[in-house]
Amino acid sequence: MALWGGRFSEAGDQFFLKFNQSLSFDYKLFKSEIVASTAYAKELAKAGILNADEEARIVAALEGLGQKFNHDDMMTAIERGVEDVHSLVESELVKMVGDLGRKLHSGRSRNEQVATDLRIFLKEEIFNLKEAVTSLERQVIQQAEANLDAIMPGYTHLQRAQPIRWAHYLFSWIEGFERDKERLDDLMKRVDVMPLGSGAISGNVWGLDRERLRADLGFGAITRNSLDATSDRDFVVETMFCCSSVMLRLSRLAEDLILYTAKEFGFIELGDKVATGSSLMPQKKNPDSLELIRGKTGRVVGNLTALMMTVKGLPSCYNKDLQEDKEGLFDSLKQTLDCIQVMELVFGNMTPKPEVMLAACYQGYLNATELADYLVIKKLPFRHAHELVGKMVVFAIQQGKKLEDLSLAEFQSFFPDVENDVYTYLDVQKCVDRKTAVGGTAKSQVLAQLARYKKVLS
Amino acid sequence: MALWGGRFSEAGDQFFLKFNQSLSFDYKLFKSEIVASTAYAKELAKAGILNADEEARIVAALEGLGQKFNHDDMMTAIERGVEDVHSLVESELVKMVGDLGRKLHSGRSRNEQVATDLRIFLKEEIFNLKEAVTSLERQVIQQAEANLDAIMPGYTHLQRAQPIRWAHYLFSWIEGFERDKERLDDLMKRVDVMPLGSGAISGNVWGLDRERLRADLGFGAITRNSLDATSDRDFVVETMFCCSSVMLRLSRLAEDLILYTAKEFGFIELGDKVATGSSLMPQKKNPDSLELIRGKTGRVVGNLTALMMTVKGLPSCYNKDLQEDKEGLFDSLKQTLDCIQVMELVFGNMTPKPEVMLAACYQGYLNATELADYLVIKKLPFRHAHELVGKMVVFAIQQGKKLEDLSLAEFQSFFPDVENDVYTYLDVQKCVDRKTAVGGTAKSQVLAQLARYKKVLS
Amino acid sequence: MALWGGRFSEAGDQFFLKFNQSLSFDYKLFKSEIVASTAYAKELAKAGILNADEEARIVAALEGLGQKFNHDDMMTAIERGVEDVHSLVESELVKMVGDLGRKLHSGRSRNEQVATDLRIFLKEEIFNLKEAVTSLERQVIQQAEANLDAIMPGYTHLQRAQPIRWAHYLFSWIEGFERDKERLDDLMKRVDVMPLGSGAISGNVWGLDRERLRADLGFGAITRNSLDATSDRDFVVETMFCCSSVMLRLSRLAEDLILYTAKEFGFIELGDKVATGSSLMPQKKNPDSLELIRGKTGRVVGNLTALMMTVKGLPSCYNKDLQEDKEGLFDSLKQTLDCIQVMELVFGNMTPKPEVMLAACYQGYLNATELADYLVIKKLPFRHAHELVGKMVVFAIQQGKKLEDLSLAEFQSFFPDVENDVYTYLDVQKCVDRKTAVGGTAKSQVLAQLARYKKVLS
Amino acid sequence: MALWGGRFSEAGDQFFLKFNQSLSFDYKLFKSEIVASTAYAKELAKAGILNADEEARIVAALEGLGQKFNHDDMMTAIERGVEDVHSLVESELVKMVGDLGRKLHSGRSRNEQVATDLRIFLKEEIFNLKEAVTSLERQVIQQAEANLDAIMPGYTHLQRAQPIRWAHYLFSWIEGFERDKERLDDLMKRVDVMPLGSGAISGNVWGLDRERLRADLGFGAITRNSLDATSDRDFVVETMFCCSSVMLRLSRLAEDLILYTAKEFGFIELGDKVATGSSLMPQKKNPDSLELIRGKTGRVVGNLTALMMTVKGLPSCYNKDLQEDKEGLFDSLKQTLDCIQVMELVFGNMTPKPEVMLAACYQGYLNATELADYLVIKKLPFRHAHELVGKMVVFAIQQGKKLEDLSLAEFQSFFPDVENDVYTYLDVQKCVDRKTAVGGTAKSQVLAQLARYKKVLS
Repeated sequence: MALWGGRFSEAGDQFFLKFNQSLSFDYKLFKSEIVASTAYAKELAKAGILNADEEARIVAALEGLGQKFNHDDMMTAIERGVEDVHSLVESELVKMVGDLGRKLHSGRSRNEQVATDLRIFLKEEIFNLKEAVTSLERQVIQQAEANLDAIMPGYTHLQRAQPIRWAHYLFSWIEGFERDKERLDDLMKRVDVMPLGSGAISGNVWGLDRERLRADLGFGAITRNSLDATSDRDFVVETMFCCSSVMLRLSRLAEDLILYTAKEFGFIELGDKVATGSSLMPQKKNPDSLELIRGKTGRVVGNLTALMMTVKGLPSCYNKDLQEDKEGLFDSLKQTLDCIQVMELVFGNMTPKPEVMLAACYQGYLNATELADYLVIKKLPFRHAHELVGKMVVFAIQQGKKLEDLSLAEFQSFFPDVENDVYTYLDVQKCVDRKTAVGGTAKSQVLAQLARYKKVLS
Repeated sequence: MALWGGRFSEAGDQFFLKFNQSLSFDYKLFKSEIVASTAYAKELAKAGILNADEEARIVAALEGLGQKFNHDDMMTAIERGVEDVHSLVESELVKMVGDLGRKLHSGRSRNEQVATDLRIFLKEEIFNLKEAVTSLERQVIQQAEANLDAIMPGYTHLQRAQPIRWAHYLFSWIEGFERDKERLDDLMKRVDVMPLGSGAISGNVWGLDRERLRADLGFGAITRNSLDATSDRDFVVETMFCCSSVMLRLSRLAEDLILYTAKEFGFIELGDKVATGSSLMPQKKNPDSLELIRGKTGRVVGNLTALMMTVKGLPSCYNKDLQEDKEGLFDSLKQTLDCIQVMELVFGNMTPKPEVMLAACYQGYLNATELADYLVIKKLPFRHAHELVGKMVVFAIQQGKKLEDLSLAEFQSFFPDVENDVYTYLDVQKCVDRKTAVGGTAKSQVLAQLARYKKVLS
Repeated sequence: MALWGGRFSEAGDQFFLKFNQSLSFDYKLFKSEIVASTAYAKELAKAGILNADEEARIVAALEGLGQKFNHDDMMTAIERGVEDVHSLVESELVKMVGDLGRKLHSGRSRNEQVATDLRIFLKEEIFNLKEAVTSLERQVIQQAEANLDAIMPGYTHLQRAQPIRWAHYLFSWIEGFERDKERLDDLMKRVDVMPLGSGAISGNVWGLDRERLRADLGFGAITRNSLDATSDRDFVVETMFCCSSVMLRLSRLAEDLILYTAKEFGFIELGDKVATGSSLMPQKKNPDSLELIRGKTGRVVGNLTALMMTVKGLPSCYNKDLQEDKEGLFDSLKQTLDCIQVMELVFGNMTPKPEVMLAACYQGYLNATELADYLVIKKLPFRHAHELVGKMVVFAIQQGKKLEDLSLAEFQSFFPDVENDVYTYLDVQKCVDRKTAVGGTAKSQVLAQLARYKKVLS
Repeated sequence: MALWGGRFSEAGDQFFLKFNQSLSFDYKLFKSEIVASTAYAKELAKAGILNADEEARIVAALEGLGQKFNHDDMMTAIERGVEDVHSLVESELVKMVGDLGRKLHSGRSRNEQVATDLRIFLKEEIFNLKEAVTSLERQVIQQAEANLDAIMPGYTHLQRAQPIRWAHYLFSWIEGFERDKERLDDLMKRVDVMPLGSGAISGNVWGLDRERLRADLGFGAITRNSLDATSDRDFVVETMFCCSSVMLRLSRLAEDLILYTAKEFGFIELGDKVATGSSLMPQKKNPDSLELIRGKTGRVVGNLTALMMTVKGLPSCYNKDLQEDKEGLFDSLKQTLDCIQVMELVFGNMTPKPEVMLAACYQGYLNATELADYLVIKKLPFRHAHELVGKMVVFAIQQGKKLEDLSLAEFQSFFPDVENDVYTYLDVQKCVDRKTAVGGTAKSQVLAQLARYKKVLS
């Protein structure tokens, strides 16, 4: 049953109708559609379009439909060629209550239904995403807490830079995840707005009390312009952006962890539970979990690009192009949620190797900046100190020595004021714990951040 | 059955394994996998790894598998958690021929299998795309031929510019479709190259005769470097680009046709077979078919962007990220093919309105350029003529007249050398048929192009 | 003067150095760099690295530099091959105060400088964007207020749907612009966070009081993890997303206005000030302003895609890839600001044609939904009413009549309960003013929204 | 001087005119514009619009203009607000030859001029890109030839997989570059087509002999439909795709080389000429050259996405949106060319460390596949062999041994048929040279490919 036969004298082409249908994916909005239709029926009753008995019968039928209609029923409906989830619910309703069901659509358009359903659906999805991020954060923090004294090389340009705490490294991701959650909160403000009661384009003709309807549906606010209400997809685009933002972060974390599990780094070992092997090479243990997370980032950003391109240059108000908002959205939500959860699984199945991390801190002149700082204390302007230490590093490389292996005489040949205390100053542990300014890698700071996270996440 | 258990002491996490599997989409490569495995078995026999009897049994089993394994079997295999189509075929083979099946993978890797299967699959898909474009072209040409003398306003900046033939307008799309097909031909050269016999990364250890294998599989050439062979996805990216190119064209054609079916233009009427109605507004007849084509363009380009992002910065050789090449590719191919076919359907279900088109040519001063040309003949440098006609148009607008309605005196008040022949010169039909240079809108040219297309497309 | 010569024994290749430099675009951060360096010098003094005299001399020199260094000086510095704005300021400082200038970089890295400068710069740019949007909104509202009683056809699928007020149409854009501004406010929270005092990666070694530094620089908060502080580019990506969101809206508005200025619609006339002509066709007046806005949308979204791709899969902490964040960001900000301002110019230079709009409302059966509503009042279930009106429309088309031109007998042949009051019910003005639910197109609602906007925007 | 004043009664708004102008970037087409205008003048003469003397004076003036107009003149013209390069050339011509210059535009439109100029420009740029790729290939091959016997670990999933030749690794990139060049050749076919003689939209009114014009301009073919000729931007999109394809490859190569220069891998050392230091950390030597190449990939793909989005859904024929094709195109061409050349510089300034590469081959069980192959020779079906070797690897890891360090008794405890020849079979050099199938890493194959490349590139 199409919702629009009267004006047409010829049936739609079968291939076109299949191309045109959306039930094969918008069936995900089934529950939301039931909820929204129920509220609309109640409001129609208050507006006098339905009487109390009619209202009761429609509400009961919708409730029954929501309970009994199962996955197989849905697959059958898709095969039957039902156009969309809105047509489905209306036609099932008519099956159950007869002509009375044909009253429900009074003053209502599919344009506002799809907008309303999407928002109801998204409110739950956004909540789930946030919960999943929090759960991942807890797992990451647990890893950090288990190895609070592990020290690893910090990198810039993928070259060893300065020693840092493993926990400090892990906490850098928490900062980002907290921003992601903040962004989801901001998004929620714009999703939690009810469009129902806008008609197709010009507003509701039966003078519904939209604030009462809003309260009934549990929305935070109502839309204020019927044209905007029925065709705005900002909130879908922004949801896909928030997913992209999470994925970009996960892609960078995955890249790091792939490197750290590589033979060459060896900072962590991945558990068998989240790795796979090769069909040909018997020795392989591959970080597929992390590679897939990294790889799926393209897909989630691609979905965002897709919808932006679809929306670009579209005439205002509803155009069928907007039907293309759903598949990408659903996919982005699913991929992002899956990736967050797999990342949590990875953190629950990895073994850090603090001794390998620490050993790496002793190769690559990671305390060179500290040596320059030492010279600053000895009254050399920093830029000169930097230049001089650069030359010392070249000298040490040529000698095959670490900086702390240079003799005092060698140090003094570069700068006479160097004293014996230089050796203490260059100690890796000391280098790390000297960074006491807020946000630094000193133990004091790391403990402070840990305490903060525990409070925020509890 | 995973193809790689030996090195692992713990089973994979269920959620991860589901995240990791690809059978739910790479099952589309089932037929290709059978074909490639059969050829590989034959080649292993020639290399002495299998004897004649073993070869015969494997080949027969694969053939049987290809015939009997149906859609329900596949759904069951997906539910069982089989990792991918390669594992599926090997494990089914082992079920059929026992230990012998375990010999098939000698010297072979999934990396080269997936590359080979994808290419076999794509060769057919590219062929289908080309056929569909050709079929659409024929339908467009039929529309042109049916109204060879229809004249419509040509637009630039969506402002009426100059009169052109409807057929000439339609032919402008054929030019683009011909380029799309040329691009698909160029792509085919790069797809029609066989990677099989490259191992996981370093080459085949059994010294296979890859040229013989190529001939057996019907490829045009073989890859020349095993690392490149197993991880190159250029051809996938390029396929998705070619799809995007087709879709961009269709999006512009769809935009035009949506405009032309709008009440305001009214140049064509869309048949009921490819239009839909509104659930609320009984009078509506909406060009959903065309809007969806336009809307899906974002999706196909989004798939391209997605894979490009996935590939960007990936270490060389195979990484699991590349598993993400398939879903987007399959989707782009399907959407593009569907859209081409729906566009053909639209052309088969539209009615042009030549009288509306022609009427529009008389409003908007579309013969102003011709008037300037006339003045050039009367020896006025073009730039002066252009300036002068601009002023005449302003004058005509103020008078509420068309250019051809100005009196000779009025013309002469702008430029004294205008004579009575100006009225003939400004005639719409004459304007059109004066454009006789190759590619112009004159009837002679349109007929020439029509003859050419008929030859090319037959 | 490079900031890092000591460790190198050979000078950089000239072509590479040019490829590597960023001064040719990051010079835009010059003022921010001066501000941030001044604050850093003061804080170094408080930490005892500079004495009061040194602090005073550096602060004075930086102030002088900020005042005297002009555009030509900058062009010369770029030609001289200065690496970036940070090197420039430090080297100019050394020119002015000698060795003392070499002390400024103590404990500081360019990684945190660029992050700090960008944020200072962005805070101003975001403010400017918001102001520009508000200014555009005021212009749009002025257009609405000037024609509060103009009625136009509302469209869905680019087919005439229902009559709406021109002001209601214009207000639908205000709703979106308000969301854009809300998004910019949310973004600001994440931009207004100070990274300075994080070192290159591990934190500040001189134990700076970062809260004091924050207050001095006027930031709202400080970063809490040095690794995140120096390499986070979320805020840049989000800025580019907010720009994209504005542009997508403008692209749709531009599309509408291009249609409305087309001969076929004729709802508005564009002033000469924001249109251009054709070099060949003298009569043309093209909406280039609007087309460019629509066209530039791709560019701004492209910049977003670009940075997302650049960030994807990057190892954590600073990588030089991130230098690519600036050109796209600067371009997106400029294009978006320009487009907002040009759109304001367009609204200041257009003339609506209420009589053309109204005339269009009488063609296309825009009151068909109202007829169905009428039948609902006459106790026909809506879905039946919809079907019946569909048939009436077909009948009316065949008769070449409007709905309101059907005789009562004709109406009653479809549904006997139709009475004479149907003609009043179908009146366009009445149709519009019946939509009194919040957000509807009734005059009461439009006035309510107008009042609200005036309050919000004042 | 605008080319279109007559129809306008009010001057354009200054801000809009600046927004609208394109000379600030399309000045790059100046030379192409001179060439195309000269040819057009000659053809106008042949069509009788210019006499021989007029033709000679215009041709001479254009030639003079091409020679004398320098960079400063151009900057002045941009500041003066000249609209575009076409207006510039016409107005300069009028300055030189007076009213005669005003005849040049007879029958010509800017739409076809810009299409023609772009194609002339691109033909040279595509040629340059191809040359640069070839030059890079030669440098890569030189690196390979200098270390033909170097053996390194081949990776999949960034885990060591099998030993391969360094030269074989390098050659894998040549395969891709050859495809990139092939793609550029295919593109050239579609670029080398002349649109001139198409008018604004409907064709040329003076009946030009476009084939003669084509020959004069050195194009390979002419366009066949005037509408398509003036608004087709396929070739621009495809050029940007070809650039993206090159950049994606370079991004992966850059990623590899960044890894290989990291302390952890150490396979190559980067020369000082293509590295930079840190402003804070004196020991750092960063691969900025490679990071920038990787980072700029996003930008080039972003440019492609941008134009695709701009083109999507655009009405046919010229719209001003298309002006946005140029900046992105010019940027993509420049960035791609720069990156190719910097990559060549990197290859000219790197030192491979064969001893480090080889040492890495002995850690990570890279000969495990060979052990399985050995068992296949000993008549164990491959899948069983794979499983068994998996267990041997676990055993060896537990023993802290390499596979070749296991005793014969230990081997036999897994599979009794293992004999002493297993040790020879597992030798790294032997593993490599066993891959003799075409495209394998055996020396014979590497020499064969080297010979082929030398032939192809000479």
